[in-house]
Parts: sequence; structure tokens; C-alpha cells
Amino acid sequence: MFNFKIHKELPNGLGRVGTISTPHGDIETPTFVVVGTKGTVKSLTPEQIKEAGAQIVLANTYHLYLEPGDEMVKKMGGLHKMMNWNGPIMTDSGGFQTFSLGVAYKYGISKFIAASVPPIEMVEEAYDKLRQNKKAKVTEDGVEFQSIIDGSKHFLSPEKSVEIQHNLGADIIFAFDECTSPHAGYEYLKQSMERTHRWAKRSLDCHSRILENMRMAGPAIFGIVQGGRDESLRKESARYISSLSFDGFGIGGSFEKEDMEKAVGWVNKILPKEKPRHLLGIGEPSDLFMAVEKGCDLFDCVSPTRIARNGGIYTKDGQINVTNKKYREDLQPLDPGCKCYTCQNFSRSYITHLFRTKEILAYTLSSIHNIYFITNIVSRMRETILSGNFENYKKEFLGRYYKN
Amino acid sequence: MFNFKIHKELPNGLGRVGTISTPHGDIETPTFVVVGTKGTVKSLTPEQIKEAGAQIVLANTYHLYLEPGDEMVKKMGGLHKMMNWNGPIMTDSGGFQTFSLGVAYKYGISKFIAASVPPIEMVEEAYDKLRQNKKAKVTEDGVEFQSIIDGSKHFLSPEKSVEIQHNLGADIIFAFDECTSPHAGYEYLKQSMERTHRWAKRSLDCHSRILENMRMAGPAIFGIVQGGRDESLRKESARYISSLSFDGFGIGGSFEKEDMEKAVGWVNKILPKEKPRHLLGIGEPSDLFMAVEKGCDLFDCVSPTRIARNGGIYTKDGQINVTNKKYREDLQPLDPGCKCYTCQNFSRSYITHLFRTKEILAYTLSSIHNIYFITNIVSRMRETILSGNFENYKKEFLGRYYKN
Repeated sequence: MFNFKIHKELPNGLGRVGTISTPHGDIETPTFVVVGTKGTVKSLTPEQIKEAGAQIVLANTYHLYLEPGDEMVKKMGGLHKMMNWNGPIMTDSGGFQTFSLGVAYKYGISKFIAASVPPIEMVEEAYDKLRQNKKAKVTEDGVEFQSIIDGSKHFLSPEKSVEIQHNLGADIIFAFDECTSPHAGYEYLKQSMERTHRWAKRSLDCHSRILENMRMAGPAIFGIVQGGRDESLRKESARYISSLSFDGFGIGGSFEKEDMEKAVGWVNKILPKEKPRHLLGIGEPSDLFMAVEKGCDLFDCVSPTRIARNGGIYTKDGQINVTNKKYREDLQPLDPGCKCYTCQNFSRSYITHLFRTKEILAYTLSSIHNIYFITNIVSRMRETILSGNFENYKKEFLGRYYKN
Repeated sequence: MFNFKIHKELPNGLGRVGTISTPHGDIETPTFVVVGTKGTVKSLTPEQIKEAGAQIVLANTYHLYLEPGDEMVKKMGGLHKMMNWNGPIMTDSGGFQTFSLGVAYKYGISKFIAASVPPIEMVEEAYDKLRQNKKAKVTEDGVEFQSIIDGSKHFLSPEKSVEIQHNLGADIIFAFDECTSPHAGYEYLKQSMERTHRWAKRSLDCHSRILENMRMAGPAIFGIVQGGRDESLRKESARYISSLSFDGFGIGGSFEKEDMEKAVGWVNKILPKEKPRHLLGIGEPSDLFMAVEKGCDLFDCVSPTRIARNGGIYTKDGQINVTNKKYREDLQPLDPGCKCYTCQNFSRSYITHLFRTKEILAYTLSSIHNIYFITNIVSRMRETILSGNFENYKKEFLGRYYKN
């Protein structure tokens, strides 16, 4: 059932337009994958998700394993039935939580190195220290997690992650990996990457065993390339992961923001062209243009909905915060000219009122707009690759969006 | 533009089926009016409100006056345009806040006397004491309110309330009144009622002056009958208010729960048959059957949406709380057999999961169901009055709903 076709490529680059076929329908790529961590895209019904332009939703293994439990999701008929989302679904493997609940937990460390990050020496000793007393501890066998709900202990191994994902019933699942911190030094990166490779093989073996016992077509599985910001490790990882019989690939881990383009380039020149590539956790407009140009087909990020719930709104002229006093009397839509449901029907003034009075509809309307905005720019990238105008569209969009 | 037609009456009672025509469409009565206090029915889009069966929405003068301000709502093109709700809208007058922010403030006093109410002597002295240091102080001229947002002081008079409501732009507005506490003694009830009568006249006069200066057809205005639980006062109030040229009537104030039926009967036997009657703040299913039977055409209440946000779900077999552990594995819809969007598409198990993980979609899905449930039983009452089966339907519904 799973299949990827490339329709057109960028003349000077790795970018391409394609279609991924899944048991729950086609995904026209490149496209932005909307995040529904706990089996719901926060504040939206499935109809609203779809109307906002989402083709595919990503749910989270770790969170759904804890609540309501993967066995319970299976009893409910799987994620599609549970959420009443009939389009394609992917689940991540829980590997990102080895980072977010591990070294990053309560340190506010982003997967990007940024000015706001606490200054931590990038040496193994400091990094090891940071790993103590965290909610996730990594061993060769897997990761011991402490529940963020009740503190109870849980163990995720590659096999456990794949079994959970089969219970959840997504169309595309991911191998279990360790997402490393941007602060990790070379030695840790190398050890971690090698372990992630062993986990990739174990994930794939477990997946194959389960598929053999299934009657129906099972999900596709993507392997994850790691290696941090190190060129030799990234390339080694891309070579090893692509040597395994995965249906597609994720590019995971952390980058120095400026180096992400280089790292994606190193990896995508090695990954086999004929399989889809998902750049994990990326949602900033400039990054999306870069990623598409460098040959990524899928991207996911909580940003569009998370910033929406805080009043952060994407517009063609850059991001605004609609809770700002100056929008109280602004009768324009969130982004003038936008064709989304929210912009067609409501004013900045009303949405500011909803935020100021903490009305739930504020979150719904803003999330709809931001998802529409992001999925729409990616689908415009698709159109302009097909029509040969990608460069112009990129220049025009980025010039306006980042003008101020 | 405003018009009320009666199509059929109950053979042994005051109940009737009618149609109210407004500038924003017809209202088939009896019907339940959905509450959207701050210009939004909490957690729902206008399309969801409509799909759930609501014909008309009620917004709140006091809250909208404070935020975003009635002048601002007017700049936004009025409530209909602001909310993007094209059906009929009514606004209450702020009179209920003379009670909720007055004597009831922080005492948890309901408009109904119930076992849970703190035992307060029902004598004028105790009542007067209770009125000190409250957020609303009543004088002959009007009510001084303290803002619940920033503590600033505001004054609502009958004239001010009517002007605000004209700015808000509803189809039906209410005269300014004082909603008294069920704990008020006869003397206070009488004084307050007489003042409410003077305020009714002032509201109507102000409304007429504004209409004379308008080019377009203005809103209809309903007068409010008060008088608490006292038979002579209720009857006096019904006689006086119906002597003024209001377009319809509200029945306000507080009741002893068991006496509400009697009180509604006293009033509706006096109010002119040819004008619509709105029983303010009523939403419990048994009360709705009573009110329809006793000749009320409209009712509003925050209950269906408020209890929904706490997991309280109406079912044909009574109210349940879906956050209860026993529903975690329950694959049935909230109310088996229900035709609402939520019940057609989601299970109790999923909705329990959404509540347990504090997901916003829980509130949306539960609110849709409860609004559907309540509007639907009232429209079934309408159908069964027309078909001559009201008594059977009432017996069947109440027998099952209150069985446990």
C-alpha cells in the first residue's frame, strides 16, 4: 500500500514534488505535518484540521502510551477511529522524549543552539552531569522514562516503541532513536549515533516480525538519521540508515541553526532519492523553504498551534501578536487577503477580545489560521516547483516575511 | 420586523407553539436560547452552534460593556458581524448582575433556594447586611458596579443599559431590572419590584427615543416581571409590566424551586397571550417541560455549556460525568442513539481521554452534545404539541431521565 512517486525535481537542487500513497489516502508532497500529540490537534475538530489544509497528522508514542494507553487506543479501533481522522497519520517513536525529558528537561534547552540557552560547556563531562536526575535515562537496551503524569517508571526499547506504534495503528511509524542535545560533544554524539543505529536495526526487525504475523497491510516504517552537527557522523548515519530496508527516512536531532541547511544537504545527498524524507520538528517558514529546496518531503512542528494559543499569528508581513493593544480596534482579518476560515469570517479586533477574555474560541480560530498559513506556503512551494517558479516565490515570500 | 405568531396551543394549559420573526430570521418556539455571554458560545464556532440546534444566542450587556466595550462592538459592526452569527441575538440588560455581583457575590447563592445555600435568615436586616461591600450597589437611579476585571467603577441605569444594548445591536433587548435574591424578605421584594417597574418605564422611554432617531428598524424590547416568590407581587408585576408597550416579556428573579411552576402560572395567566415570554436563566430538563406547559416560549441558561466543560453530560437516562473512571473503556457515544455531531463521531472513551489530558477539544465536543440535547428536547416538545402528543412525550422523557 505504501508508495512514493516523484513528479518533478528542482533543476538546481535536491528539492522535489511527489505523492506518498498510504492506506488512508495520498499525501501530496512537500507538505507540513500537523502535530496532534495526544490524539488531538489542540482545540480543533478533524473537520477543522482538514479544512485548514492538513493532509496528515502526527501523534506521539510516549504520550499516548501513558494516556489513554496504546492497548486502549487499539481497543478504540486505532488512532484513526479514535480521533475520527480518516486521513494519513504518523506516530513518532518516543525518541524525541529521550532529549526533551532527558538532558533538556527543565533547562529550557531547545534543539537549536540559541542565545537564550544557558551557557553549558560543550564537553562530555558537563553533558554527562546534565543527564543526572532527569526524566529519561538511556541505556543500550532502551530508555527508562519517568511519567510526567504520576512519576511512575516506564521503559521504552526499540521493540516496545514499535509494538506501541503498531497498537496505535498509524500509517507511518518511526524507528526508536535518541535525539541528542546541541550541547553534546563529539564522543557522546558518536556513541549515541551508533546506539541509534543498533536501535534502528532492532526497530526494523521487530516491525518485520509483527508484519509477518499480520493479515492486513501494516504501516510503513521510517528510519532516523542522527549525528548532530558533525559532518562525518551525519554522513555515516545517512549511509548506515539508508542501507537498511526502511520505507522512508526521518532526519532527527539537533543543529546549530546556521548549519542546519548544510547538515540537511549532507544527509539528503546520501539518502536514496526514491524514498520520502521527513525533517523532524521543523516549522519556521525560512527553515521550510530551506528544507524543501534541500530535498525534504515532510516536516512537523508544534509551533503553528502552540504559538497560536499564545496569540502569535503568522502573516505575510511576519509574525504578529494579536493580543497586542494596537489590534483592539483593528477590523482587518488576522492576515489580510488570507483565505482561511478565520480570516474569511472574523476580525483581529474580535480575536483580541477573545484572547483578552480567555475565551477558548481564541485558540481555535488562531490555530486554524496558523495551520492554514503554514500548510499553504508549503503547498505553494509544491505548485511553484511544478510551474518552475520556486525561486521567485521563495524570494518574494521571505523578502516580505522577514522585512522587519 | 418583529412579530409573533401562535400556531397551536395545548388543550389543557397555557403552552403554545409559535414563530417569532426578527430582522435576522425566524425563531420557531418554544426554543432554548444558547448563552454566549461575552459574544462567544464558549469553545464553539458559529457553525457548530447552529449545527447543535441553536436558533438564537443570548449575550450579556454587563460583560460586553466592560470588554471589548459596546462602542467597540458597534465599530465592529454589531454583535452579529463581530461573532459572525447571522441568526437572531438577544442581550440581557445587566439586571441579573445586580444579583450575581450584588447580594450573591462570593456567597455561592443560587437563584434557587437549595439545601446547599448558607443558612441566612430571611429577614430584611440580614439581607441588607449581605448587601454591604458587594460589587453592585442599587440606588433609585441605577446600579453602581465594580468591574470584575480591574475593580473600576461603572454605573448602569435603565437608560445606559438600553443605550449599550442598542450599540451591541441585538434583535431583542431587555429592560433593566433588579434580580432579587431568594433570601430577600417581602419588604425588600416590594421596594425592589416597584423600582424595577419605574426602571421598566424608563427603559421603554429611552428605547422609544432611540428608535425615533434611527432610520432602520430597531430591536424589539422585552419587559421583565419580578416579584420573587410572592403571589401578590408576582401578579402585580405581571399586570404592570404588561400594561406597558413591550414587544414581549421576561420572567426574572428567583423562586423557591418547588414554587416556580406556580409563579410562572400566575404570571403567564396575566401576560397577554399574543406576545412572547422568556423565562430567564432556566435550563434543567424538568423545568423546561414545566415552563413550556405553563406558556413560556423562550429560556436560556449557561448550564448546558458550563456543566459540559466539567464533563457533565446529558443523556436520555439522566446526567452522567464522562470523566468518571468507568467511562475510560466505554466505546459507546456520550448518549447512545443521539444524532449530534459528537455522538455520531466520537466515543465516551476518547472524550474521557481528552478530559483527563485537559485537551480543549473535550470542551468543544461536550458542549456540542449538551446544546444539541437541550435544544432537541425543546424542539421535540414543539413537535409533540403540534401532533397532540406532548403529555406522552413529557411522561416518557421525564420518567426515563429521572429514573435513577
